[in-house]
Amino acid sequence: MPTLDDIRLAAQQLQGRIHRTPMVTSTALNQRFGADLVLKAELFQKTGSFKVRGLLTKLLRLSPEERERGVITVSAGNAAGALAWAARDAGVPATVVMATTAVQAKVDAARGYGATVELVEGDLMGQYERIRDERKLTGVHPFDDEDVITGHGSLGLELLEDRPDLDTVLVPVGGGGLISGVALAVKLVRPEIRVIGIEPEQADVVSRSLAAGEPQKLPTARSIADGLAAPVCGTRNFPLIQQYVDEVVRVSEDALLEATRLVMSRTKLALEPAAAAPFAAMIEGSIQPAGVTASVVSGGNLDVAKLML
Amino acid sequence: MPTLDDIRLAAQQLQGRIHRTPMVTSTALNQRFGADLVLKAELFQKTGSFKVRGLLTKLLRLSPEERERGVITVSAGNAAGALAWAARDAGVPATVVMATTAVQAKVDAARGYGATVELVEGDLMGQYERIRDERKLTGVHPFDDEDVITGHGSLGLELLEDRPDLDTVLVPVGGGGLISGVALAVKLVRPEIRVIGIEPEQADVVSRSLAAGEPQKLPTARSIADGLAAPVCGTRNFPLIQQYVDEVVRVSEDALLEATRLVMSRTKLALEPAAAAPFAAMIEGSIQPAGVTASVVSGGNLDVAKLML
Repeated sequence: MPTLDDIRLAAQQLQGRIHRTPMVTSTALNQRFGADLVLKAELFQKTGSFKVRGLLTKLLRLSPEERERGVITVSAGNAAGALAWAARDAGVPATVVMATTAVQAKVDAARGYGATVELVEGDLMGQYERIRDERKLTGVHPFDDEDVITGHGSLGLELLEDRPDLDTVLVPVGGGGLISGVALAVKLVRPEIRVIGIEPEQADVVSRSLAAGEPQKLPTARSIADGLAAPVCGTRNFPLIQQYVDEVVRVSEDALLEATRLVMSRTKLALEPAAAAPFAAMIEGSIQPAGVTASVVSGGNLDVAKLML
Repeated sequence: MPTLDDIRLAAQQLQGRIHRTPMVTSTALNQRFGADLVLKAELFQKTGSFKVRGLLTKLLRLSPEERERGVITVSAGNAAGALAWAARDAGVPATVVMATTAVQAKVDAARGYGATVELVEGDLMGQYERIRDERKLTGVHPFDDEDVITGHGSLGLELLEDRPDLDTVLVPVGGGGLISGVALAVKLVRPEIRVIGIEPEQADVVSRSLAAGEPQKLPTARSIADGLAAPVCGTRNFPLIQQYVDEVVRVSEDALLEATRLVMSRTKLALEPAAAAPFAAMIEGSIQPAGVTASVVSGGNLDVAKLML
């Protein structure tokens, strides 16, 4: 399990390579939810999501041999561009395995950063493992990896620095990568802060894993919050979530859409639905924010082709 | 005609009442257009657009009698919320005349700030004048007004302060309110800076007015850039545009849509199509930016109901 020193070292290594994203407030959202909300605008992060934190941390810790042969990952979308960007930044060749249903903008982004993109159908993980072994690449799991978790922890440290009066942190949940790192960092420093995860009803693998007491797998996971549609809960993420996350709640697709529109109209942030998940929970009443509440706006990789005017 | 001192005074009066909006850069947009672009993120302004600058300036300069009786304006959208907000801030009762076709979010915004909204069909200006006279309200024209122009000039001064190395300013054009104030402020200080306006082909009243040598009126003006669909060029704005604006170019509806999606995907700013107009001109090649080029992202009052996910 990463230590607080590991996370602090990762934060130092990332400094200057990634953005220190701003905290945003909205009077209208505070009034709507009777809350004292701060939005961590991680959609302004390099490649438009938090993913670069963990992935760049991972690449900076590879051996010279691993760096030379190159890396490979599998992604529903955001991790693709993030790995490609981080690999270019670190000088490592990268291959990304994506579903043919991935958002085109995310495919283009990965290619734009110089990665080789393999579009596949069916069993994503199986095909990822086949390509990895055939080409002798180092597999970089987008979330089930200790170095990735350590890097994501840097976001938790920034929340504590920017808002020392923090009471609650709300984190969108896919496979558990972001929340495991953020919860670990936050609780190691301030165990009394509440950390709550939010995942789509249609992609609730972390809730199911917590109920079962071990990481579960979903046959399918589809949501308008495509960044949260991970079909598995990471084995390295799971024990951290068990230990450090206070609660994980589920939200409907309707609430995700309403929340995306609401937050966009009030803040003018072009967030993706995954990033609006905490607001979906507030809309449905499953979270009633108390005290200073940070909501992680995890990414902004919207499929803008769907914006009709 | 407002003087530089008038504009500086307005900027002082606005300080602390409105936001100092940030300047945003995008490596991806610079690469795409071979340019050194800075985006003035005025979509983060109070009420989501630049309009509060001019309207609050106007209200702060009313007589006590005028303030007590209240004000009225007519608006395609952004000015409605802006007047309502400014009126509440200045403690003046406000009525807003809007078309029944106005974006619902803009109607709701005006009501949310406590204004009386009158939704009318047909001749907007005629009905505005009727209500104004019946209720003995002081008419506040959203752009054809010297105090409004003076207030908008404050945005020009901020551009000069933030980027002393500025070469070009790109401004979306509706009835000419914003560009007349910005061009005046910029040219009074730095006459060598180029100021270029951009308006929709389908709402090109300022281009037509410049060609005719006097303010023109369009029978209809419809565009996805609803904030630019003014059917008239202001009589007070026109001579300033003639004198201080170097060029006004027209953009197609297709380019406006493409530009909105492009800028949103690259910057994660939830801008409205009007605010993307300068990028539509760059996409179409009618503007080739040279030197440090500021593009005014004039507003973010998108109709989020049109965001399909």
